[in-house]
Amino acid sequence: MNKVNKSRIRLLTVEWKNNSLVLIDQTKLPAKLTYVRCRSYIDVADAIKKLVVRGAPAIGVTAAFGLALAAIKSKTTNLKIFFQELTKAYEILRSTRPTAINLQWALDRIMQKITNLNDIALIKKVILDEAILMANEDIATNKSMGIKGAYLFSDGDTIMTHCNAGSLATVGYGTALGVIRAVKESGKKISVIATETRPVMQGSRLTAFELKHENIDVNLIPDTAVGHIMARGIVKHVVVGADRILRTGHVFNKIGTYQLAVLAKTHNIPFYVVAPSSTFDLKNNPNDIVIEERSKDEVIRIGKKILAPKNIGVINPAFDMTPPHLITKIITEKGIVSPPYTKSIKKLIK
Amino acid sequence: MNKVNKSRIRLLTVEWKNNSLVLIDQTKLPAKLTYVRCRSYIDVADAIKKLVVRGAPAIGVTAAFGLALAAIKSKTTNLKIFFQELTKAYEILRSTRPTAINLQWALDRIMQKITNLNDIALIKKVILDEAILMANEDIATNKSMGIKGAYLFSDGDTIMTHCNAGSLATVGYGTALGVIRAVKESGKKISVIATETRPVMQGSRLTAFELKHENIDVNLIPDTAVGHIMARGIVKHVVVGADRILRTGHVFNKIGTYQLAVLAKTHNIPFYVVAPSSTFDLKNNPNDIVIEERSKDEVIRIGKKILAPKNIGVINPAFDMTPPHLITKIITEKGIVSPPYTKSIKKLIK
Repeated sequence: MNKVNKSRIRLLTVEWKNNSLVLIDQTKLPAKLTYVRCRSYIDVADAIKKLVVRGAPAIGVTAAFGLALAAIKSKTTNLKIFFQELTKAYEILRSTRPTAINLQWALDRIMQKITNLNDIALIKKVILDEAILMANEDIATNKSMGIKGAYLFSDGDTIMTHCNAGSLATVGYGTALGVIRAVKESGKKISVIATETRPVMQGSRLTAFELKHENIDVNLIPDTAVGHIMARGIVKHVVVGADRILRTGHVFNKIGTYQLAVLAKTHNIPFYVVAPSSTFDLKNNPNDIVIEERSKDEVIRIGKKILAPKNIGVINPAFDMTPPHLITKIITEKGIVSPPYTKSIKKLIK
Repeated sequence: MNKVNKSRIRLLTVEWKNNSLVLIDQTKLPAKLTYVRCRSYIDVADAIKKLVVRGAPAIGVTAAFGLALAAIKSKTTNLKIFFQELTKAYEILRSTRPTAINLQWALDRIMQKITNLNDIALIKKVILDEAILMANEDIATNKSMGIKGAYLFSDGDTIMTHCNAGSLATVGYGTALGVIRAVKESGKKISVIATETRPVMQGSRLTAFELKHENIDVNLIPDTAVGHIMARGIVKHVVVGADRILRTGHVFNKIGTYQLAVLAKTHNIPFYVVAPSSTFDLKNNPNDIVIEERSKDEVIRIGKKILAPKNIGVINPAFDMTPPHLITKIITEKGIVSPPYTKSIKKLIK
């Protein structure tokens, strides 16, 4: 993947341009707003693994374009070999991050589109068209969730959020931050408290950057200050995204989400999850889900600075599970659901 | 203050040597074990403010030696001027950190010792002797708490701790980590989970370093993983130190302690506070206590690495308050107290 240096005003996280995929390099934020150009599906898999792009909806669409690149760049005229190449790309892209379901959802949606086709040129076109459609749908879906969710908030509210479920976690607009944008666009004055979100600091690096970029009032707090800030009585709502939601309402999201939900419950603060319907996994049970364990390096160093003894043991789960009794509402583009989730989610996703 | 480069095996955080105070430079840990020599009370105040030395018991004893340096280095033969100098030193040392009570307790204890004396040479001797006595008492107190607390733990237990309430927070041995040391010395095999403790990372930098240094099994986790790790069912106890304990049992300690206590309660995990009786403040009420708000720089940068947009708003409280209903026991050198604390603390501190 090549680096593209340009500065733009609107944050477009994932963009198809000149037969390649241009991604904001999120590992460089907030110091520099730079872009990475992926010319092959291997570039794309690499970008997902290295967190150049992250956030469940964004990696779903990115993987779809990865499959499009695998198709377009193929030189074979043999249909069987072509499908073998696509299947290989599918497997490599799917294995980049195990917890977010949107990744698999996006890849499966594309594979289903082409399952009965046998003209290579047509398949290439169908795959690319579908990936572009998914990118456009992602923004439309986020705006729809924003409009649906905005009525839950009042003028003057202070809203806490965790990690980055914003423009930078989607193609654009955002899920949790999309609702916050929509609240602001509806004319209500709001203030955001963003948690740092150790170890990868998506709150400091991405959410603070993104909200500042759009002049939305934001204060950053260490992850250790969540309980204390809630006890002060200033937080009116908590809003987070999701990487996977089960039919029972169990939510898999960035590590730290679960304790935010426990603390919100303790302080009687409503806790909302905002996610597109592609985040639902109606098949699996809580124990089936693999929680990605990431490198200890994320915890023991920042840049060149060593924060802990080098040979120390580290437990670094990237996600956690929030049980349904801690979740006040789940906001999707198809509507807002409340407990009991087994019933309301079944009705929503038909 | 001058830097002293030497390497020693035993961690002695605060040491009086050749008419000066030698402190482990905790801002350099875990990368380097170096020492700082303070030759005046101004050096000492500076070291406390910059977190060269931290931890409630350690800064109490350090401040006492600061007062000793102010006395010893005075050149006046006029008793009135001498007391004016001491009072100035007292005020400067006391104002370095507002939340920990041991600082004021230590300074007041020394001032009371000399209140009726009028021989400058004698006063100098009394102050230094008292500071040395307090340093020795600190270690003895910690060992006593360790022995008293150790019986609460069983062979094979995994214990979670927050911040650093160890050798490095005291003259030596430690409060919360002192109990952990005592459990190990009693022949029980234990394992520690240390939280990073953003923003100053005392868990990563100090607790991980200190336990590793003594071959106590330790794993580091991000502060966001506390709830998830507790939900996994592996944490048997939580042990923390304290900067101030009120007569009602309200505990002021490092930011993040309160949410650890809420999460421990949620998961039915006993939550213990370990602190010397000098930590008790029987006069003030919860609302009287100033929670120190520290620089936003602690949150937005680590070393030279910028973690967030430079002009972002930050809320960075250094401490929080844990209410008594979340605290299972308070372990002191005088004994262990349980709820109702208003009654048990009154009986303990007579």
